[in-house]
Amino acid sequence: MSSSDGGTGRTAGTPDPDPAAPRFGAHAQAPFQGHHILSVKQFDRADLDYVFRVAHDMRTMVDLVGSIDLLHGKVLANLFYEPSTRTSSSFQAAMVRLGGSVVAISEVRYSSVAKGETLEDTVRTLEAYTDVLVLRHHEVGAAARAAVVARKPVINAGDGAGEHPTQALLDLFTIREELGRLDGVTVALVGDLKHGRTVHSLARLARHFGITLRLVSPVDLRMPDDVLADLVEAGVEHSEHRDLAEVIGGVDVLYMTRVQKERFADPAAYEAVKGSYVITPDTMRHLPARAVLMHPFPRVDEIHTACDADPRSAYFRQIAFGMYVRMALLAMVLGRA
Amino acid sequence: MSSSDGGTGRTAGTPDPDPAAPRFGAHAQAPFQGHHILSVKQFDRADLDYVFRVAHDMRTMVDLVGSIDLLHGKVLANLFYEPSTRTSSSFQAAMVRLGGSVVAISEVRYSSVAKGETLEDTVRTLEAYTDVLVLRHHEVGAAARAAVVARKPVINAGDGAGEHPTQALLDLFTIREELGRLDGVTVALVGDLKHGRTVHSLARLARHFGITLRLVSPVDLRMPDDVLADLVEAGVEHSEHRDLAEVIGGVDVLYMTRVQKERFADPAAYEAVKGSYVITPDTMRHLPARAVLMHPFPRVDEIHTACDADPRSAYFRQIAFGMYVRMALLAMVLGRA
Amino acid sequence: MSSSDGGTGRTAGTPDPDPAAPRFGAHAQAPFQGHHILSVKQFDRADLDYVFRVAHDMRTMVDLVGSIDLLHGKVLANLFYEPSTRTSSSFQAAMVRLGGSVVAISEVRYSSVAKGETLEDTVRTLEAYTDVLVLRHHEVGAAARAAVVARKPVINAGDGAGEHPTQALLDLFTIREELGRLDGVTVALVGDLKHGRTVHSLARLARHFGITLRLVSPVDLRMPDDVLADLVEAGVEHSEHRDLAEVIGGVDVLYMTRVQKERFADPAAYEAVKGSYVITPDTMRHLPARAVLMHPFPRVDEIHTACDADPRSAYFRQIAFGMYVRMALLAMVLGRA
Repeated sequence: MSSSDGGTGRTAGTPDPDPAAPRFGAHAQAPFQGHHILSVKQFDRADLDYVFRVAHDMRTMVDLVGSIDLLHGKVLANLFYEPSTRTSSSFQAAMVRLGGSVVAISEVRYSSVAKGETLEDTVRTLEAYTDVLVLRHHEVGAAARAAVVARKPVINAGDGAGEHPTQALLDLFTIREELGRLDGVTVALVGDLKHGRTVHSLARLARHFGITLRLVSPVDLRMPDDVLADLVEAGVEHSEHRDLAEVIGGVDVLYMTRVQKERFADPAAYEAVKGSYVITPDTMRHLPARAVLMHPFPRVDEIHTACDADPRSAYFRQIAFGMYVRMALLAMVLGRA
Repeated sequence: MSSSDGGTGRTAGTPDPDPAAPRFGAHAQAPFQGHHILSVKQFDRADLDYVFRVAHDMRTMVDLVGSIDLLHGKVLANLFYEPSTRTSSSFQAAMVRLGGSVVAISEVRYSSVAKGETLEDTVRTLEAYTDVLVLRHHEVGAAARAAVVARKPVINAGDGAGEHPTQALLDLFTIREELGRLDGVTVALVGDLKHGRTVHSLARLARHFGITLRLVSPVDLRMPDDVLADLVEAGVEHSEHRDLAEVIGGVDVLYMTRVQKERFADPAAYEAVKGSYVITPDTMRHLPARAVLMHPFPRVDEIHTACDADPRSAYFRQIAFGMYVRMALLAMVLGRA
Repeated sequence: MSSSDGGTGRTAGTPDPDPAAPRFGAHAQAPFQGHHILSVKQFDRADLDYVFRVAHDMRTMVDLVGSIDLLHGKVLANLFYEPSTRTSSSFQAAMVRLGGSVVAISEVRYSSVAKGETLEDTVRTLEAYTDVLVLRHHEVGAAARAAVVARKPVINAGDGAGEHPTQALLDLFTIREELGRLDGVTVALVGDLKHGRTVHSLARLARHFGITLRLVSPVDLRMPDDVLADLVEAGVEHSEHRDLAEVIGGVDVLYMTRVQKERFADPAAYEAVKGSYVITPDTMRHLPARAVLMHPFPRVDEIHTACDADPRSAYFRQIAFGMYVRMALLAMVLGRA
């Protein structure tokens, strides 16, 4: 954990397992025990390496035996204020593959939770029953608010337009597993770079690995200035483009996001660019042989299904990598990794 | 598995446990490992006997100890695009009684899954997290589409007006357990024979056991011609009737389905026949002493609750038999039976 | 169990583990095995002491190890016809902390269960899959109706304006754990005493422990006459008040409930009294040092969050105590406590 983690430190009442041991940078045993996972900003390079090492162990374990009993007897509250089948299922599967149990709360809109109870009271209620909380909420900062009152670890599974740290971690982990390395790779982020919290988080993590970014988007959907300023400040090599053809031949990772027609003020502007932001088998001919194609999913039509059989299409493997990262985080905050 | 199983064979990437062993007819160990369960058409007589033997073992096990750890560490994705408490709960209970875990996805209408993602992408997402998928969908052929892309076994839990194979299997298993045999029994299918996929599937399986069918329905709700043609082709002895009284004294099984008023063009036609399609204690006086009364449930008023205490009323036991059949299928496709 | 338990006795077909052993008063081993939990009226003093002893053991167990495998292999049907995240989650967590599994049915409004199937048929369906049923329903008497047909134990998790026995039990258990005793304590029930089934049930249990009641409410929201008559008949010392200030200095427990503006015929009447029914840090200055503040939750604004840090505020601990009580009841009706 970086020391400037903005109040995302250990939960109240959880004693440090070994106060004398170094917790930041050089990791002690179970360095994340009792911590909240709220933002990618709380991770330094050593933290990220640690997460990915544990996630890789989880991958190996699942490949070999499917499940273990590391979290046997532990209970996860999977609290989703807005539906997200993908993320919710991923956390649930992660918990049960570690031998734990899940109390899933997804019908929030119909329940007393929705009838005026504050997020804080709901969180304090659920932590009375469980050992760790995963929270998806439509408001920016919801996970941080939960963490203020929670005595059990809170994992942010997306807070509105805010953060979705486990998505950013799984994206990096996918690159690491697919390419064998993260340091010095070149990543093209393509599509709607204005609205996607996923690409913002990913861009902000680039500095830890010397990643070069190629930012490819319509002019209306450029990466926001504050993210660009962060890249400059961190010394991340990057460039902006309108046309994917300018960069595709030189990337290690092609990371697609969806360009929605509704985002354009002028429909003609959408029609003019949309071809650049759809991947077809023809596009794939320009992608280097060892590069990979990623997508946070769900996709609509920005990657043709004819690309699915291409071995460089990593998006289905990316989904499995997400489960391994979430297994790692659950085990870590519960002090078992 | 019959060799004409229409592409419902083994999932991609699953090696045959023993290629030299016979898989069809005379069964090898775990003959269904890695197979999809899509249609009753994929089962031959030997397959059915095998399913029923395993289901009977499951019944014995549940009676004796309630649960076992046969599928410990395995994870089921229970994906229901339309609600079905009965079928969903049955599969969930089946999985946990075998020691496995369930990720239940039932709020599909609210989730990203509903926002334009294809069934194929959703299936490939969920199989990344889990070991087996149960799918209920409103479109005919949905399960077959899922099976084309899935690398994990898919079990069809009902695809619109298409198939609901586990219901047909549990119906046959109920007859076997209740009467002690399937060969040569006489079954009256009663009520709406036009719309019910359940009675269609059951009729099509009759040929494997020399079952005689008495088809009792209003003229507007006759068994469809294509099913009747199949019966003729397969040499299944059968006859059509309007009046249950003509056949009730000679049946081993009285299988009721609901006659809905809305299905009639002419309300007078409904009024004229409805008395024949409601079972009361008085009707039961005509049913042979060793026969059984079945119903796929839910019922509305086509069987009076006053019949529930009659020992020949098998419909609640039928529900439990459904769980044993689903336990058998889960264990089988996961290679543990 | 009291002998006048109104048909809430043992489920059909469950043999008494030892008919010679005393079951009422002086408890034999597993005295609640196979019983339904429908109403607080079925509990005598010895029953209550037994429940609380087991619940205290559950508290100790959770504090020490989190979970045990007492109900390994058992399956709970958690059937909620109306949403209640708190109660549903509490029962689910209770079951999994005992090593059992849960089939949660909460989308009842969308399912076949909602399409005309009777409660009785749904219950008989779910008991075919599971070992114990928890039922929340909007109609008074629903749990009792379920118990008539169920061969597995039914636990009432709230039936409309009827009973919510596990809430009353957890309220008493909280007092016992917080104060170290129940006998002779003085409890102020404050707020809307007319509509709350929680305060009605609590009041009716007071007689078993010589509890003195202070009933503080607006005149429009007085405790109903039938409950008051029961108090008189049982010899429970009690008094009615409009103003909390009259009693706060002399209570051991301050039990708040919500006063809703909509309950008043005359808005002016609401405005005149609302100040008396909101707890602030200033109010807390008048509460004795060893007293506790409780609330059944959810709260809206009747207890300021500024009171949360006061050690006498027991409402979040009360939530955890609810899980221990439900663990106790599940273990008891399944014959493991």
